[in-house]
Order: sequence, then structure tokens, then C-alpha cells
Amino acid sequence: MDAPIVLRFAIRERLYKIIFEADTIAGRTFDFLLFATIIASVVMAMLSSVIEIRIHYGKALYWSEWGFTGLFTVEYCLRLIAAKQLQRYAFSFLGLVDLIAILPTYISVLLTGAHPLVPIRVLRLLQIFRIFKLTQFLQEERKLLLALIASIRKITIFLYTILILVIVIGSCMYLIEGENNGFTTIPQSIYWAIVTLSTVGYGDIAPQTALGKLLAAIIMLLGYGIIAVPTGIVVSDLSHPKSAAGSTPICNNCGAREHGQEASALSKLKTGIAVLGVL
Amino acid sequence: MDAPIVLRFAIRERLYKIIFEADTIAGRTFDFLLFATIIASVVMAMLSSVIEIRIHYGKALYWSEWGFTGLFTVEYCLRLIAAKQLQRYAFSFLGLVDLIAILPTYISVLLTGAHPLVPIRVLRLLQIFRIFKLTQFLQEERKLLLALIASIRKITIFLYTILILVIVIGSCMYLIEGENNGFTTIPQSIYWAIVTLSTVGYGDIAPQTALGKLLAAIIMLLGYGIIAVPTGIVVSDLSHPKSAAGSTPICNNCGAREHGQEASALSKLKTGIAVLGVL
Amino acid sequence: MDAPIVLRFAIRERLYKIIFEADTIAGRTFDFLLFATIIASVVMAMLSSVIEIRIHYGKALYWSEWGFTGLFTVEYCLRLIAAKQLQRYAFSFLGLVDLIAILPTYISVLLTGAHPLVPIRVLRLLQIFRIFKLTQFLQEERKLLLALIASIRKITIFLYTILILVIVIGSCMYLIEGENNGFTTIPQSIYWAIVTLSTVGYGDIAPQTALGKLLAAIIMLLGYGIIAVPTGIVVSDLSHPKSAAGSTPICNNCGAREHGQEASALSKLKTGIAVLGVL
Amino acid sequence: MDAPIVLRFAIRERLYKIIFEADTIAGRTFDFLLFATIIASVVMAMLSSVIEIRIHYGKALYWSEWGFTGLFTVEYCLRLIAAKQLQRYAFSFLGLVDLIAILPTYISVLLTGAHPLVPIRVLRLLQIFRIFKLTQFLQEERKLLLALIASIRKITIFLYTILILVIVIGSCMYLIEGENNGFTTIPQSIYWAIVTLSTVGYGDIAPQTALGKLLAAIIMLLGYGIIAVPTGIVVSDLSHPKSAAGSTPICNNCGAREHGQEASALSKLKTGIAVLGVL
Repeated sequence: MDAPIVLRFAIRERLYKIIFEADTIAGRTFDFLLFATIIASVVMAMLSSVIEIRIHYGKALYWSEWGFTGLFTVEYCLRLIAAKQLQRYAFSFLGLVDLIAILPTYISVLLTGAHPLVPIRVLRLLQIFRIFKLTQFLQEERKLLLALIASIRKITIFLYTILILVIVIGSCMYLIEGENNGFTTIPQSIYWAIVTLSTVGYGDIAPQTALGKLLAAIIMLLGYGIIAVPTGIVVSDLSHPKSAAGSTPICNNCGAREHGQEASALSKLKTGIAVLGVL
Repeated sequence: MDAPIVLRFAIRERLYKIIFEADTIAGRTFDFLLFATIIASVVMAMLSSVIEIRIHYGKALYWSEWGFTGLFTVEYCLRLIAAKQLQRYAFSFLGLVDLIAILPTYISVLLTGAHPLVPIRVLRLLQIFRIFKLTQFLQEERKLLLALIASIRKITIFLYTILILVIVIGSCMYLIEGENNGFTTIPQSIYWAIVTLSTVGYGDIAPQTALGKLLAAIIMLLGYGIIAVPTGIVVSDLSHPKSAAGSTPICNNCGAREHGQEASALSKLKTGIAVLGVL
Repeated sequence: MDAPIVLRFAIRERLYKIIFEADTIAGRTFDFLLFATIIASVVMAMLSSVIEIRIHYGKALYWSEWGFTGLFTVEYCLRLIAAKQLQRYAFSFLGLVDLIAILPTYISVLLTGAHPLVPIRVLRLLQIFRIFKLTQFLQEERKLLLALIASIRKITIFLYTILILVIVIGSCMYLIEGENNGFTTIPQSIYWAIVTLSTVGYGDIAPQTALGKLLAAIIMLLGYGIIAVPTGIVVSDLSHPKSAAGSTPICNNCGAREHGQEASALSKLKTGIAVLGVL
Repeated sequence: MDAPIVLRFAIRERLYKIIFEADTIAGRTFDFLLFATIIASVVMAMLSSVIEIRIHYGKALYWSEWGFTGLFTVEYCLRLIAAKQLQRYAFSFLGLVDLIAILPTYISVLLTGAHPLVPIRVLRLLQIFRIFKLTQFLQEERKLLLALIASIRKITIFLYTILILVIVIGSCMYLIEGENNGFTTIPQSIYWAIVTLSTVGYGDIAPQTALGKLLAAIIMLLGYGIIAVPTGIVVSDLSHPKSAAGSTPICNNCGAREHGQEASALSKLKTGIAVLGVL
């Protein structure tokens, strides 16, 4: 083995430790600086949508945008160099986010001739996805996500039931309120039904007839009662994770069956981690 | 036994497998096509309520409506032929939904002389009930429904209490706000009380007097606290299904009593399935 | 003992069985008729607040009001005669409700000279409290009420915390929004804070300044998170009623300690029933 | 030891018992009077923001303000004298609250020369923070606070996820609704997303385009489902406090492991109390 190759390997190893891990002081410093840069760039992207700020600080925004893009480009290149498996990183979720975070600014230069402002602004908003990078700082979020994945089937059924309910209620309200009072179309009425059932209640569309109000009142009480269902699902999944494993009794003397459960729970966790490992 | 009869029996058997079951490839293909057709017809029914679409694509909507009706008529006839117990299917919930899904379009032809448009549109909306057919694809929904049926008594009492509360509050607000500010009648005030207690809060009716606002504030905090009750009911029923069986202690050494419970739980499930079996 | 006294005693006993109990056919018939009468009288009281109905059916409403008052007067007298302990019934919650249900109509006759219309209508509306009579039909409501009484201390603390929070937030918003935009006074701002924290959100008062919107957003997320607290309290009280008894472990081998708990639970229930027994 | 010193010590001891404890009759009387005074002063501060009241009762408000400030000053001095550890009290949470409760009125006198009106009113309004003094009356609030502190990590992650969600949704809505309909800037759109996700729904900003309504409907259903997560966290923490201690099984025969858990729970409680002990 040549000395330069060994050196290059050592540098890459060190880079990997700094960029991808947070165990060393250098690694934690890098993470903190990256975190601060992402927050700053997102705040800048949000502020650039305010007209007053765009008028007064247009130039500063322009240059800070290029500054952030430069920093993230350097970071992306370093990650490509340091990555143990180049392809796996490049096509991972965070790798694509890293790419998306720098592309818009470069593309805005190419498109500047035709549409001067609008597409730039549109693409610039994708920078907000940079914030997703923050997820790598919080490992505990995965646990919560795992719990949600475990109960995703039940939640799907719940949302599906809500959807049927909302279509039927919306259609009925369209008939009752008779194309007036904002209930102009069935999709519009379904939108109202969702606004009401989820207890948001904007008030831009509201029933005017007595019959419409009666139906609306029933829907509200329904929505009030229905909200208990997803809560119940998540709660029972969070507090009794074992009971999800089937018909095994909750309380016993920690016999062999229990260990079997632990094994299945472990294998479940492993599957979950494997799923999340792609990110 | 004659050969034709045997053949007819074999065909019917095969039809039943395709239409009513989902174990074979043909059965699953049929289910998927039916699912797609229902979704398409419901989307079409919803879009036909939008005036702009009715003006531009009126003819396409008209013919696609007849197309869907034709398909569902063929499906209904096939189901009638394949059904093992003709009468039981015809008067089951899904059998009636199948009939209701095709009737409106045919009736609209007969009524076209007198009332040209409105009643047709009204009956057409019943087609949306076709979407209920989708429930037969999801067996797990039954479990959730069973849990709801188990706690229906408690939920009824809860809703009954809410109703008394809302009538009393509505009447008080009618007195306080004095027929002004939208609180014109007691039913109207009760409607407001439901809108507020369920935390929907349209804002079309809102108290204006100081006393009215004080009472409204109390109701809101009440509603905020009350929402915990149905959640508590569903959660405790979902996570401790055994505790619903009476006074048996939750924790013991899996003795004979436990098995008795399992038996009663089984019999309960059977009753539930029998109830749902009618669908 | 004289024969007439024995007879009177027998009649009273029979009356008690019919009016206060629901074990005999006569008793259940009486309960059903009373239930129907209460519903009808409450619906009538609600409808009498609608001006159009008062104009068209004023006379019918007037006479039906006297009819209902007559029926409830007869019922009240029968209850007074049949009651085993006259005083205890007369001053019980349901006894007072029975009295309040008939008094307004009689008082409206006496007051008719001085104030011709307003007080009569107000008193007439008190008839709506007849709906409280329905509470005697549902024994299971007491259980739910007992659970609520058990966790009333926690709920009080919760509401007390909310109150402090709402006063502080309301005052801050009054300072930030500066007497404009509907935040005219501190009580008004506190009203807004309650409307927002309880996620009702009428929209009659809404922050206009950037700082006000930031604070409002924080309050909303707070309110979104805080709603979990009362739910958690009720759920943990409903599903683990024993854990409320102190530091005894939830899971053990049904030893002597358990029975002690049962005893304390029993005594608690007795206290609760004694509290409710007054009603 | 001199007699006067002993006497002074005895007086201070007695003062401490009256002011800081509630075991003696004098102590409870003091607490009740203080409670009433705080409520009265907060109500006065709230009322002084209403213009009509300020016009009519300006002088009474002015003198009552000085009266309350005098009373709280006396109370603060007595606490300083009676406190066993002067410094610890002065810099504790309640000590600072006691100071803040009297400072605004004195400062308003000093500032009256330079800035004639506005700062005085602002400082005067700070008196409303006197309500924090009420926190010392309820010791049980600490338990609830401890439970919240225990699950603060999970709640932080939840709020962090919500924040990312709300930024992404707000940016998307800004693009879809196109700077019209109130979605003028990204921060404004994020404000709307929070209003919607938390199911508050003021209605001051609402989507007008079909695509915007579709996205809004998805957010509402999302918010409806998401609310289950914090509830689930708090519930599972409140009802299964042990399961938070790691991977130890919930149900066993009260072996040595259990006692280890109890010890760790105790140490946790002690840490929590130490944290709260600063207050």
C-alpha cells in the first residue's frame, strides 16, 4: 500500500468522523455550525418573501443567498468525498435533500433570461427542506416514528372512514343548503365538512338554513366524539406495545412466552430500524 | 343430475368466487376493477356539481353517467345470479346499496318530463353511497367498529349529557344576549352552544355583552375539559378490553376465571360478527 | 289499625311503585309517558322563542303551556303524596327541579300587571330546566359522574393553571396589540386568550401585528399540547382506578393488600353514592 | 445570649409560622387574607384597562393601587425579616414575584416626569403578574409539573416536528395561493398553518383556490390525527410511570428489579423536587 493512499484514507476517515458523526469535539462543532447555518438560511428564505424586506435589503439577501449556497455546496462535496459508500449516500433521503438545498440557486441563474423572478422564488422555497437535515440530530424522533409506523394501518382505516363520512355529509349539505351560502359545489361542501369535523371552523362557509344547522350540529358532536378514536389508537399502542403482538395475555409470570414476545418485538424493532436505515 | 344443471352450478360457483371472494387472481382483479370504477363514478358525481365543468363537459358527464350505471347494473345482475341465498343478498345492506347505486339514473329518465333537472341531481347524489361498498375490502374496519359498539352505551350517555348541557347553556345565552347579536331564538342559541362546546367556533354568532362573553369563556373551558371524557372511554375500552367484562380483577395468575373471560370475550366477538354478518 | 288507613297506605305504596320505580309494567308506562311529556314541553319552550312561530301559533303555545304545567303539577302532587319521606324528596335535587318546572307559569300570571311581557318570557324559559328531570332515567350517568368527582381535584388544579396562563397571556396581548384590533381591554384580551387556547377560534378578535401573531402561534401550540393533560388525567383515572389509591403497586398476586384496596374502593363508592343520594 | 436577641428570635419564629406556614389558625387567616388581596388587586388591574371605568373611577383606582402596593410592600418586608435564609428567599421564584408585584407602582412615580403617559400604564399593567403569587397556595401543582418535566423531552420533539411541518406547509400554501388571499408572506402563511393545524381556525386567512383548499383539508385531517400524539405521550407517562424507566417489563412478581426501579423513581423524584425546591 502506498503512503499517499494511506494518507488519503486517513483524511477521509477523519472527515467522516467530523461530518457524519458527533462523538468527537470537532464533529460536534461541525454539527453545531451546520445547525446554525441551516436555521439562518431558512429564516433568510422566509424573510425574503416579505416585500418590505425585499425592497430595503434586496442586495444583502441576494449575497447572503449565494453565501449560504456556497457553504452548502462545500458541505455537499465534503460529504461526497467522506462517504464510505458514495452511491448509497448520494441516493439516500438526506443526500437528495443536500442536493436539493443547493440546486435552486444555480438553476435560477440559468432560467434568469425567460422568467426573471417567479421561478427563482419557487425553487428557493425548496431550501426549506434543508431543515429536514436537523432530523439527524435527534435520534429519539425515530422511536416516535416507529410507534406511528406500528399504528399506521389503524390510522389509515380511521382516515378512510373519515373520508367516506365527509363525502356523504358534504353531499347532503350541498342538497340541503341548495347551492347558496357558499355550498356552491360538492367538493366545496366536502371541504366545509372537513373544516367542521376537524373542529377547525373557519366560518367562511357556514350553514344558513335550519335543517343545515341541525345537520352541522350533529356533525360537530360526531367530530367531538370521533377525535377520541385516533387518540385511543395511539395511546393503547404507546402504553401497551406488547398487546399489539396478538392474543397473548398482558399479565403473566414472565414465562417462556414473554421471551418469545421480546424476540418478536426485537425483530420488529430491527425491521423498523432497517426501514429507517435507508434515510 | 343433468349435465347442464351441473354446468350451471359450476359457473355460478365460479362467479361467486370471482365476485364475492378475493382469494383467486380473478377475484382480486374483479375487486380492483370494481374499486376503480366506484372511485371514478364518485369523482364524476362530485365534479358534475361544479357549474363550470357541467357547462364545458356536460355531454361527457351525461354519457359517462350512463356508462357507470350500465356497469353497476351488470354487476348487480351478476351478484343476483351468483348469490347463494338470493333473498339474503338482495335485502342485505350491501345489496340495497348496490340497488340504490343504479336506481337514480333510471328514475331520472321517468321523471324528466315534470321536473327537468333538480330531482335528477338529488337522486344522482345517492350514487355516492356506492363508496360504502369499499368497506367490504377492509376487514379490519370491523374490529374498530366492534370496539365502538362495545362502548356505545357510554358514548350515548355522554352525548345525552352534552345535549342537556347545550340546551341549558343555549337558553341562558338567549336570555343574556337578549335576542340581538345572532342569538335570535333558543334553537339558534343551542346551535351556537354546540359550535362553541365542540371547539369548532365559526364566529358567525359570537357573544357581544360582557356577561355573554364570561359565560362563553366558561363553556369553552368546559368543552376543553369535557373532550377528555369520550377519549377516556374509548382509550380505556381499547387498552383494557377485559375490564369491560365486569368486576373481575385485571391482574391474576391466569387461572380458570381468565379462561372464562376469554370464552365470554369470544362469545361477544361472535355476537358482534353475527351483527356485522348481516352487512 | 283502621281499615281506611291500611287502604291509604296500600294506595301510597302502589303509587310509589308506579311513580318512583320502574320494575312493574305500570311503572315503566308512567316513566315512558313522563319522558315523552318532558321532551314535548322542552321542544315547545324552545319553539316559543322563534318569533315566526309565536306570531302564527301563539294561542296554541299558550294553551299547551298551561296543559304541560297542569300535567307536571299533578305529577308533583302525586310525588309529594307517594314519597316515603316527604321533606327529603321536597328538598332533593329532583324535587326542586319538579317544583321549578311548574312555578314559572304560575308566577307569570301574578307578574302580568306590572311588566307585561319580558319577565313572563324569561320565567317561561325556566321550563327548559324540566330537561333535568330526564336525569332520573339514567342510573349509569352516576358512574361517570363518580369518576369525574374522583378526579375533580386534579381538574380544578388544571383549570386554575389555565386561568393564570390566560390572564398573563391576555395582558401581554393587550400590551402588544395596543388597544387596537379588538384587544380594547384586558378582560377582552383574556376572553380572546380563552377562545384561542381552547382552540375554538371565533375570529371576531385576531392579532394584527407580527409580534401579536407570534405570541398567538405559541399559545395555539401550547393549547394543542395542553389539551393532553385533562385527557391524561381522566384516562388514567378511568383505566387505572386503583392506582389513584396511593402508592400500592399495580401488579401483584392478589394478596391481602388487594382486598384492602377493594374495601377502600367500596368505601369510596359508598361515600360517592351518599353524595349522589342527596339528589 | 441576651434576652432581646432571644425575643427577636422568638418573634421571627412566630412570624415565619404565620407567613410561610399554614398549620396554625393565624397562618391560615394570613393565607386567606393574602389570597383575597391578590385576587382583588388583579381584578382591579384588569378593570383599570377598561376606558369607561378609568374615566368614572380613575381616582378610586389610583388610591386602591397605592393601597394594594402598600399592603404587598409590608408583606414583602415581613417575609424578608421572617425568612430563615434571606438570600435564598430573595432570589427564589416566589421572592422575585413578590418584588415584581410592588416595583411597577414605585417605578411609575419616577418615570412620570420624562414620559408622561404610556410607560406608566404599561408598568401599572405589570401588576397583573401578581397572579403568579397564587402559585404558592397549591402544592399539588408540583406533581403535575413533575409529570410534565418527565415528558418534556418527548414534547420538545413533538413540537419540533410540528414546527418543521408548519414551515413546509406554510411555504407550500404561499406558493399555491400566490401572495393573494391573505397569504402575503411566508411567515404569514406559517401563522395560518399553525392556526389550522391546532384546529383554532380564526378564518381571517382562508384558502380560496381549489388546490389550496385541498392542501388545507389534508392539513386539517393531519392535525386531527396528530393531536393524538401528545395525548398519547402524557397518558402513557401518567398511567405507566414505570415504563419510562427503560426496558424493564411492566408485569412481574415484585422481585428485586422492582425495588431497583422504586429506588430510581425515588431518586428521580428527589431530583425533580430539588429542581422545584429552587422555586
